[in-house]
Amino acid sequence: MEAIEKTLNFIVEIEQLKDVYRKTRPVGLDRFENSAEHSWHVCLAALMLKDFANEAVDIHRVIKMLLIHDLGEIDAGDTIIYASETSDNKAKEAAGVRRLLQLLPAELAQEFTALWQEFEAGETAEARFAKAIDRVPPLLHNLLGDGHSWKTHGVTADQVFSVNQRIAAGSEALWSVMRTRLEAAVRDGLLK
Amino acid sequence: MEAIEKTLNFIVEIEQLKDVYRKTRPVGLDRFENSAEHSWHVCLAALMLKDFANEAVDIHRVIKMLLIHDLGEIDAGDTIIYASETSDNKAKEAAGVRRLLQLLPAELAQEFTALWQEFEAGETAEARFAKAIDRVPPLLHNLLGDGHSWKTHGVTADQVFSVNQRIAAGSEALWSVMRTRLEAAVRDGLLK
Repeated sequence: MEAIEKTLNFIVEIEQLKDVYRKTRPVGLDRFENSAEHSWHVCLAALMLKDFANEAVDIHRVIKMLLIHDLGEIDAGDTIIYASETSDNKAKEAAGVRRLLQLLPAELAQEFTALWQEFEAGETAEARFAKAIDRVPPLLHNLLGDGHSWKTHGVTADQVFSVNQRIAAGSEALWSVMRTRLEAAVRDGLLK
Repeated sequence: MEAIEKTLNFIVEIEQLKDVYRKTRPVGLDRFENSAEHSWHVCLAALMLKDFANEAVDIHRVIKMLLIHDLGEIDAGDTIIYASETSDNKAKEAAGVRRLLQLLPAELAQEFTALWQEFEAGETAEARFAKAIDRVPPLLHNLLGDGHSWKTHGVTADQVFSVNQRIAAGSEALWSVMRTRLEAAVRDGLLK
């Protein structure tokens, strides 16, 4: 019973991720996306695109990573990827993830802390694919939403190609499709 | 490439779940919850509570079910569980899920349609556990949020116990903890 009570406290605490707002708007919505609904979205995207990973991946591990990948933002806030991922912010996120996961029974805390670190390091097939998928929805938001976040934050085509080519490390096929769409956005003047 | 393009269209289309609002407010937030962030929340809850399922469950299947369980609401809207789950609404949800999943390549469409039907039927260990978990966050929202949704919709203690005892079909241990909390809410006058 104590383990259930602890876990329920965790479940309530992580709900704050619903109050962390990102820099893009979901397609057709007139508000910014929050990191909880984003996390759901990338889990489903990973699940449906798993056959296009460069290497065979354990999709269950990918989804577990994506379910927790943004928990650190509850304490650290969301930062735009183009403003560089600073070591200060990374340290805040790591501390935040630790604080939250330590609400759980010890064995779970340990398992998911290790999984979060694996995601952050980006050195396994699962982490590479999870990180690739994580980039896709914000690109779609911009591509289908008049480049709103690129324009607001003065993000250039060079930056978009440079940061997002990491998609290829998880899925060459997916990057090929996204790169084609981005090139069309440049031709259309959406991205400069 | 065509399969990726189809899947990207699906990913954009399901984003509308972020615009389906439920009847409870996340703890500490002054707005209603949407069904996309709810879906993320129940996936993590299932993952962390899996050891308390009555029967051994394939947690990956449970999570896949929970990722898609509310997609039908994009076309049908959210309905409060206490207002009874009508066959008319169930038919609308089923049609909505079919419409969305058919955007995917055929094999995926088939797999996830079957999984959604399994969830709805509630007759396998995974479906029973997924349905149990699905009930927990809205109860926590009410328990920790002055019974706001119970009060607004005139939901009685009898209804709450009758509808939520289905949690026991997925996890006796979890229902025991939740029942204790609900009984305290009745003693405190939060639930009548």
